[in-house]
Amino acid sequence: MTTLMEVARRAGVSIASASRALNGESASPRTVELVERAARELAYVPDARARGLKRGSTGQLAFGVADVGNHVYVEMMRAVEATVGTAGYRVLISSVGSTVETEVALLRSLASGYVDGLVISPLRVDDELLAELAQLRVPVVVVGLLPHPGGFDNVRANSAAGVALAVEHLLVTGRERIGFVNGPEDTTPGRVRGEAFTDACRRSGMDEHRVVAADFTFAAGLDAARELLDRPGAGGAPLDAVVAANDLIAAGVYHAAAERGLRIGTDLAVVGMDDSALAAQLLPTLTSVDLGAADRGRHAAELLLARLREPGRPAQAVVVEPTLVVRSSTAPSQEAGDPS
Amino acid sequence: MTTLMEVARRAGVSIASASRALNGESASPRTVELVERAARELAYVPDARARGLKRGSTGQLAFGVADVGNHVYVEMMRAVEATVGTAGYRVLISSVGSTVETEVALLRSLASGYVDGLVISPLRVDDELLAELAQLRVPVVVVGLLPHPGGFDNVRANSAAGVALAVEHLLVTGRERIGFVNGPEDTTPGRVRGEAFTDACRRSGMDEHRVVAADFTFAAGLDAARELLDRPGAGGAPLDAVVAANDLIAAGVYHAAAERGLRIGTDLAVVGMDDSALAAQLLPTLTSVDLGAADRGRHAAELLLARLREPGRPAQAVVVEPTLVVRSSTAPSQEAGDPS
Repeated sequence: MTTLMEVARRAGVSIASASRALNGESASPRTVELVERAARELAYVPDARARGLKRGSTGQLAFGVADVGNHVYVEMMRAVEATVGTAGYRVLISSVGSTVETEVALLRSLASGYVDGLVISPLRVDDELLAELAQLRVPVVVVGLLPHPGGFDNVRANSAAGVALAVEHLLVTGRERIGFVNGPEDTTPGRVRGEAFTDACRRSGMDEHRVVAADFTFAAGLDAARELLDRPGAGGAPLDAVVAANDLIAAGVYHAAAERGLRIGTDLAVVGMDDSALAAQLLPTLTSVDLGAADRGRHAAELLLARLREPGRPAQAVVVEPTLVVRSSTAPSQEAGDPS
Repeated sequence: MTTLMEVARRAGVSIASASRALNGESASPRTVELVERAARELAYVPDARARGLKRGSTGQLAFGVADVGNHVYVEMMRAVEATVGTAGYRVLISSVGSTVETEVALLRSLASGYVDGLVISPLRVDDELLAELAQLRVPVVVVGLLPHPGGFDNVRANSAAGVALAVEHLLVTGRERIGFVNGPEDTTPGRVRGEAFTDACRRSGMDEHRVVAADFTFAAGLDAARELLDRPGAGGAPLDAVVAANDLIAAGVYHAAAERGLRIGTDLAVVGMDDSALAAQLLPTLTSVDLGAADRGRHAAELLLARLREPGRPAQAVVVEPTLVVRSSTAPSQEAGDPS
């Protein structure tokens, strides 16, 4: 591997000058130009990188998420960044895609010298993925429900409790015929939320009205919501409330309701999930279950930092409990909207 | 470090077959299975990485953005990822923060061996930043308006033309008193959009009604929109339309209008900018100027790939022209909304 000395020699400057030039410290433009060219010509591997190769320390951590566009990951990511930033680490965000293959290829590569540790929040966590993660040579914190406890530092939301919170709130505010628009049930969040809704219906003695959107997106939510709202509810009466598996799907419910002349909050109560930025931007504002995305990010970052300090420590699991953020979309009928 | 030869031997295939299998080139499913298992069992470090160690090539590119949470960057990023992915590169996204200092520290570090090239889209592009970028030892494509042309591969939107499009559309659809909620005018987008609105008012002989939000966010947009809507328009008459500097600010205008009993599309037409996902999620749906975020991302990625293939080529500039996406928020009064 090319050394700094070789670069300095080729550039015709002192090692100290070459180092200053390469590290962006005080050096004349001419020196910088000579050194940069020499470094390029010799394919010099810079200090940070060289250190990384020697000691496996890169000063960088990666946050691998299934969808960079998802509000939830953005909040999580900001919390991760803030937490590890105080410890002097930079965070690289990487969309790991939604298949185990793409995830593994990317994580394996990142783990091989680019970062000191990983926080990943995949849509699906199965034994195949965990087996791959176990082989990475840097610590990994998994955000999401594990198929079985232990083995990895883990942070998860309690979305089952979140669905229960949403249904209880709707029952308490007088709704009786509650539908559910879930996301794909072959994903961990979809499976858990679907089971939780079934349980909530059983506990309250409600008929279960559930549709499954093709994805956790606005467009898929809109399609699924149209199907749900065109079904008769209990005793042929229309549904008076809908729980959506996330806020994007809830936005789809808003549009399906508007198409059918239903006013959100009065004719149809809606509860979203994630309490993303969108919840406060929609009109009427959306009641949403806060699954603690920022808290999950902070906990994940803290677990990773602790693991880096103390590699031998036992794996820990943190469960972030949900809270309900009540807004206009579930306002009691006599209050919400314009009855004209 | 495990070599391809060891993987091939363990898999019982030729090195050529192992290479094809690992690079996703033509290989029998059986071969792929054997080779991938062997690679896993030997914790084989992928080729890209091995190449990186030898030749200073990392197989990774970075996309540095001012705000990872901004819809626009998400669309840009997806386009960058799709484009460079076909060339076998991975993209790491990094929030560079909004100050030159944080940006430079991060970019310099990434450039020192972690990535082969950078696409950056900062909120502010000044000579200080450009001077720093010029010293990075990997190519940089700047997305955003440069203080002076040349020197860097550059892709930019034409947001001035976008503001003009928005104002013309409102005038053509019969609005006469148009306000503007801009973002901070010490940012490049804010300055350009503000000047463009002033020009549009001059051209059409309208009084200028403009407020500046503290940030390009929903909350800041809401505050600024309240101020704007409480001002009298021309001749004391209220404004009948508002142009927002982005869709998040436009969502703030929706809420300020709702607070004042104004119906979007009928009492108040609204045009956003960026045509982000939010535009179709709002109710009524938001007419928005598409500044071509995805196109800008694709062009930036293509410029970077071309630069990596041909380091000596002259710097190129691409300007992506805006288009207007008309939705319900500017529907002519007699059509939109419920007049009851």
